[in-house]
Amino acid sequence: MSALTFELLHQDSRTAARRGRLRLTHGAVETPAFMAVGTQGTVKALTPAQLEELGAEIILANTYHLFLRPGHERVRQAGGLHRFMGWSRPILTDSGGYQVFSLAERRKVTEKGVTFQSHIDGSRHLLTPELAVEIQEALGSDIAMAFDECPPADAPKAAVAEAVERTSRWAKRCLDARRRGDQALFGIVQGGVHDDLRRAHAEELAALPFDGYALGGLSVGEPIPEMRRITALAAPLLPADKPRYLMGVGTPTDLVESVARGIDMFDCVMPTRHARNGYLFTSQGKLVIKHACYADDLGPLDPRCDCYVCRTFSRAYLRHLFIAKEILAMTLNTLHNLHFYLSLMRDIRRAVEAGTFVSFQAEFHARLAESGGDPLGDDESGD
Amino acid sequence: MSALTFELLHQDSRTAARRGRLRLTHGAVETPAFMAVGTQGTVKALTPAQLEELGAEIILANTYHLFLRPGHERVRQAGGLHRFMGWSRPILTDSGGYQVFSLAERRKVTEKGVTFQSHIDGSRHLLTPELAVEIQEALGSDIAMAFDECPPADAPKAAVAEAVERTSRWAKRCLDARRRGDQALFGIVQGGVHDDLRRAHAEELAALPFDGYALGGLSVGEPIPEMRRITALAAPLLPADKPRYLMGVGTPTDLVESVARGIDMFDCVMPTRHARNGYLFTSQGKLVIKHACYADDLGPLDPRCDCYVCRTFSRAYLRHLFIAKEILAMTLNTLHNLHFYLSLMRDIRRAVEAGTFVSFQAEFHARLAESGGDPLGDDESGD
Repeated sequence: MSALTFELLHQDSRTAARRGRLRLTHGAVETPAFMAVGTQGTVKALTPAQLEELGAEIILANTYHLFLRPGHERVRQAGGLHRFMGWSRPILTDSGGYQVFSLAERRKVTEKGVTFQSHIDGSRHLLTPELAVEIQEALGSDIAMAFDECPPADAPKAAVAEAVERTSRWAKRCLDARRRGDQALFGIVQGGVHDDLRRAHAEELAALPFDGYALGGLSVGEPIPEMRRITALAAPLLPADKPRYLMGVGTPTDLVESVARGIDMFDCVMPTRHARNGYLFTSQGKLVIKHACYADDLGPLDPRCDCYVCRTFSRAYLRHLFIAKEILAMTLNTLHNLHFYLSLMRDIRRAVEAGTFVSFQAEFHARLAESGGDPLGDDESGD
Repeated sequence: MSALTFELLHQDSRTAARRGRLRLTHGAVETPAFMAVGTQGTVKALTPAQLEELGAEIILANTYHLFLRPGHERVRQAGGLHRFMGWSRPILTDSGGYQVFSLAERRKVTEKGVTFQSHIDGSRHLLTPELAVEIQEALGSDIAMAFDECPPADAPKAAVAEAVERTSRWAKRCLDARRRGDQALFGIVQGGVHDDLRRAHAEELAALPFDGYALGGLSVGEPIPEMRRITALAAPLLPADKPRYLMGVGTPTDLVESVARGIDMFDCVMPTRHARNGYLFTSQGKLVIKHACYADDLGPLDPRCDCYVCRTFSRAYLRHLFIAKEILAMTLNTLHNLHFYLSLMRDIRRAVEAGTFVSFQAEFHARLAESGGDPLGDDESGD
């Protein structure tokens, strides 16, 4: 039995954009797909029912966080993460690699794995490739990620090269460690912004029997044109019949541009985290809901949006909730921002399917330029 | 046109319990009814859609809070509170009387009204009976409350007597000030725990043309038997053909016992506030979800409950969310606690209708005793 099948439905003739369908243990996912982030076993501020209503087909959860709290054995006892969190559709878990490098304290990397202190209570742990697989198998996600070393954006090339080599050795250990037949395993290509390292690593991992491939170590602070160049370089080196996942990306523009370079899957905290901070995505650009100019604005957040929030509430009410620090502000803002992202992915899929992706892409950029670009990282500064 | 009609459907033969139906501008409300509190124009942590799914027929909003933020003129411009907050069913607004006495700073009472400083920004305001009516008419609630003086539980009898007299004069000014024909206005009976003051005030207000009557100044710190005694004494002095509302009450036991004494309407922050603090109402008594004993408890919060939360999640997951400080903990806990309260009211109504209220009451107390009473104020210590 295969834990994953990937059907390529359409290949754009003018770009590397692809329209596909993933079949996973818990259901199908239309690609290109965006995965909302549910770090601690919940997409913050939403019920699973609300996520389903939004049309989310797959979400991401974090091995690092769930390992520390409530603990993967506890989740296993509860029947796995799907049952624990009341979500019956597919879940991808990352391996914890990125989090031990970005969140944990007193980190030490050895060939065996990474020792670190928990950001919650300072407790010491050792995360190894084998343990990362074991945790993800206990969680029972549809897609597990190989444990990787993720150097910072400013790491010297020699350090990146070393991380690439270690990530390859760890990738093989992850493949050896897997026991479940109903869970897909993706490899993660590292190599920073160095073309030669990326090329070599993509080719090396592509030769291993992973069910899909991710580009890691991007969107970690490097200039956007670098990210675009590496994506364009690495994606075509990965097997065309396997899904390609760009980790931790990104802005709406990033999604459109990365699809054009052959990416099928994305995850990012941006829509949900921005929502909680009152930064809202609209067809007219980003909107900062706390601003006084919305105090008497009786129009919907986005006149072109048909989500529950835009159908039901005014900007004035959303501003009131945010200013009054009401929990409902977090929920409504998250509903809207995720709807924006998931709608964008639907539009992208439709355009690729219809063979109109290039004109879609042009219209997307024209609309963005018209709205004055984006003060929060949405403008396309190069490439 | 009448802003309110009250139909008495059934009168219990052995207690003062009544089963009725309120018809208000925005719809019907089956009584006895519990009103969830939506202080700032939102029942904390829930969308209006979730409230409707719970079967909430009426909610309460606070004049004091909405006057200060976002301001009643802003809500009027937005088409009234119903439209502003996306809630199409009935709303009752309190008058701000209780809040200026419990929340505001540097309070000064004169015959004209109450001057106070906002608890938000220290700004100075004067709230009068006329302004309280004007604000509530701007909000457009289905039921407005007269502006009253609410002395603390430990006030000397002379001060309570003075507050009663002023509340009567203010009540007449509220009646004179009303302009809207589609908004009901309720009078508030004060008098603390003094039988003579309560009796005189109930009779005095009953002679005024209010659409309904509330008992105020209870559940403010007095012993429970005092509250029961005053309720039993005052309720029958109020017109039998008008709804009777016990303000700020209470625990599940309070609801059952006050219905038995002739009360038709309640409001209380207890189910929603307790939810946010992790105190959950169940058929087996109250449950403190943070306790370690629930870490591996895969059973539902309440095995006898059929709400979304109990159908979907385990105690272990709810504890995880609460410990991890996830917003979803607030939402799920609130959904469950409000469902518990609204179900209790449905059970009460069914029992009164069927003429089985006394046995319902006995079973309710037996169940409570079996669950070891209630560490958070639910046990019946007297009366």
